[in-house]
Amino acid sequence: MAFELTKEYLDHIEELIEKQDSTTLKAEMEGMFPADVTGILYEIDTEQAKYLVSQLDTEVGAEILAALDTDERKDFLKSFTSEEIARYVNEFDSDDAVDLLNEQPIRVREEVIALLEDREQARFILDLLHYDEDVAGGLMQKELVKANVNWNMNQCIEELRKQAEDVEKVYAVYVVDDNDKLLGLLSLKRIVLAHKNTKVENLYDKDIIYVETYRPAEEVAELMQRYDLDVIPVVNVQGRLLGRITIDDVVDVITEQASSDTLAMAGITGDVEEDDTVWEQTKARLPWLLVGMMGGILAAKFIGFFEGDLKVVPAMAAFIPIIGSTGGNVGIQTSSIILQSLADKTGLNTDVWHRLARMFGVAFINGIIISIIVFGFNLLIGNEFRLAVVVSSALLSVVFLASFMGTVTPLLLEKLGINPAVASGPFITTANDLIGYGVYFGLAHMLLGL
Amino acid sequence: MAFELTKEYLDHIEELIEKQDSTTLKAEMEGMFPADVTGILYEIDTEQAKYLVSQLDTEVGAEILAALDTDERKDFLKSFTSEEIARYVNEFDSDDAVDLLNEQPIRVREEVIALLEDREQARFILDLLHYDEDVAGGLMQKELVKANVNWNMNQCIEELRKQAEDVEKVYAVYVVDDNDKLLGLLSLKRIVLAHKNTKVENLYDKDIIYVETYRPAEEVAELMQRYDLDVIPVVNVQGRLLGRITIDDVVDVITEQASSDTLAMAGITGDVEEDDTVWEQTKARLPWLLVGMMGGILAAKFIGFFEGDLKVVPAMAAFIPIIGSTGGNVGIQTSSIILQSLADKTGLNTDVWHRLARMFGVAFINGIIISIIVFGFNLLIGNEFRLAVVVSSALLSVVFLASFMGTVTPLLLEKLGINPAVASGPFITTANDLIGYGVYFGLAHMLLGL
Repeated sequence: MAFELTKEYLDHIEELIEKQDSTTLKAEMEGMFPADVTGILYEIDTEQAKYLVSQLDTEVGAEILAALDTDERKDFLKSFTSEEIARYVNEFDSDDAVDLLNEQPIRVREEVIALLEDREQARFILDLLHYDEDVAGGLMQKELVKANVNWNMNQCIEELRKQAEDVEKVYAVYVVDDNDKLLGLLSLKRIVLAHKNTKVENLYDKDIIYVETYRPAEEVAELMQRYDLDVIPVVNVQGRLLGRITIDDVVDVITEQASSDTLAMAGITGDVEEDDTVWEQTKARLPWLLVGMMGGILAAKFIGFFEGDLKVVPAMAAFIPIIGSTGGNVGIQTSSIILQSLADKTGLNTDVWHRLARMFGVAFINGIIISIIVFGFNLLIGNEFRLAVVVSSALLSVVFLASFMGTVTPLLLEKLGINPAVASGPFITTANDLIGYGVYFGLAHMLLGL
Repeated sequence: MAFELTKEYLDHIEELIEKQDSTTLKAEMEGMFPADVTGILYEIDTEQAKYLVSQLDTEVGAEILAALDTDERKDFLKSFTSEEIARYVNEFDSDDAVDLLNEQPIRVREEVIALLEDREQARFILDLLHYDEDVAGGLMQKELVKANVNWNMNQCIEELRKQAEDVEKVYAVYVVDDNDKLLGLLSLKRIVLAHKNTKVENLYDKDIIYVETYRPAEEVAELMQRYDLDVIPVVNVQGRLLGRITIDDVVDVITEQASSDTLAMAGITGDVEEDDTVWEQTKARLPWLLVGMMGGILAAKFIGFFEGDLKVVPAMAAFIPIIGSTGGNVGIQTSSIILQSLADKTGLNTDVWHRLARMFGVAFINGIIISIIVFGFNLLIGNEFRLAVVVSSALLSVVFLASFMGTVTPLLLEKLGINPAVASGPFITTANDLIGYGVYFGLAHMLLGL
């Protein structure tokens, strides 16, 4: 039952904008979910988009701006004055406000904060701007409902009434002591069902999972997934409650992580999308293509040394592709399995020897099967027995080497604090290829007595 | 502040199990989160695990069983009788119960359902067993709190009190008419803040997103992400409220999807994990390695035709790797960008011509740069001018062909209802390689006048 944007509806909206029919526009847009209106904004030009948003109530406009993608919002807001931006940011949740401001030049950012009517919002934003985007502090929002442990339910509900207007989604009330130290939480369900005079301290749940501001975003995502949490409170090193992170922001972290891992595996730097300009895409793709090309040039140089051998046994050239592709495929398979297992943090860490032992078991079976088939093929098409031996031994060695590299590289990268997903990328594939050719031509040179 | 399983703690627990010190065990385990206890179960042997779980309260044991991974749980429950399983399943949420039963042989499944003391749970489970795992119906749970539109807040809270014990997480109360048709929802926040005599119909939110039972799981995930939902109600085609899907289950769908896409890209069939047996891993990996090998054999056969040419210009062999790897890299980059853009469903669908036009723009710049560098390299190392022309023209053509294949293949697979992620896998890479060699040797044969 989701809204589906059609060409016809888009034409209809553009017509309304053309006619400046603000009443109909307002009625149509305010009946839609903000996330659906963004789909329209992506398709019309900036001036039309600005007209459309300006016709809506500030609150609705703010929700739509909050739902826009980073790149599109950055472009869109270029035509806004700091005063206009401030009017919308007033209505944002603090975490979304910080995201928007981080996309802006420093001058605009400071002007907007100075212009905010809601001074509490301004203070929240200044607090949050301290944190990096990729730690818990950078994901949290300041809006939350908290209650003192010494209160009773009546006071709790009163506080909820006061704070609830600012807090979009209330999952629970956090319980703190007089110093704002986080003690536990009280679910809304319990509040609804409790007697009015029950004391908070007799009802709240002390066993809770929280996270410190400096924890990396991936760790927050992992925690919330492991414990099936919808929201997690954020504390400072002294245990003081500073904010909360909601699951929707963490879902974004998870999908972005998955998408950037996929891009890294495919040899693309940065966060490129299909509708980025040709130049942006080229910038993201060329570096790794050049790495692959350098590998190819090295391989060419290397195979050049064996030109004499190739003149004697030109059939050798025919097996260059199978050596390269088998090494590449085994390497990528192995590193992907290791990557997946690194991402799953339950249980004890397996040590590297166990990992290698299992990988070598798999390599042995796969390698033997492939080598035997290729050996048979060689004999079948009437190639020399010695060449068949060279090709199959090289294949077997390449499968083992690629399994070794595929296991060790991601583990090493993880240790060095580099995203291990690049271990499935062109760099490692290229390295694997080169090693493979080395083994192949080395063996050939020895065994064929060239 | 997450629990970290250490070797020491594991030894300590194994010692307690050895000594059958059930009091200490119970105290330690019941102070932990179920998700952390599963980490221990993965590391100890089945008999120890069974002893440990059997010492805990049924409710705690049920939470731990619900948090176990599919494979481990299947193995673990082999030592349980249907009676024992039924005792735990009684305490499960209906969606988790169905997941567990789906892992069991049909005989056990039927016995357990027959043995369930909670007959409502049994009815819920029988309802849910109708649905495939990968549609909304298969993700939903039957436990939810609903209120009739004609009630007032007092009746609502009374119902909440009655139903709340069975419903683990209450996000909101669903509002239905006398026929159980879903009309809207009432947030707990509103219930807490409302006067007791307010009528539901004056307070509930009519603008809600719901999903039909037959919608695919990915669509549910996409909806919940787009609209930042924590929970989504599930209805049948008549609009009757049947259940709800919570965000934690959808987060699992998202991560599984990402992980199976990564595995598909890496040429691994099925859901393999590092700690699966050597044989399971081989089974998942060998098929695609064989595809790659077949490609390699085809390439060998193909290059074999040009053996005469290679005898004359053995330097040609040296550029086989760069042709293959450039085609592979460009193809994977292109298809990954298309895949990412297919996953993002906001906005209008771009038509295939626009896609190709943009991709060709990128291909042109990348291709020209790579061709020029390789051309320079060829002249530098003193290769014949004509060979340099052949290699660089072949590279340029390969970049274009791979961009074309990388754009069209995922779109075609998506149209055919096949997971487009396999478009980045070994099959396409192999096809790209073969086309590349064809262009290279074809051009060489023509331009070198061999």
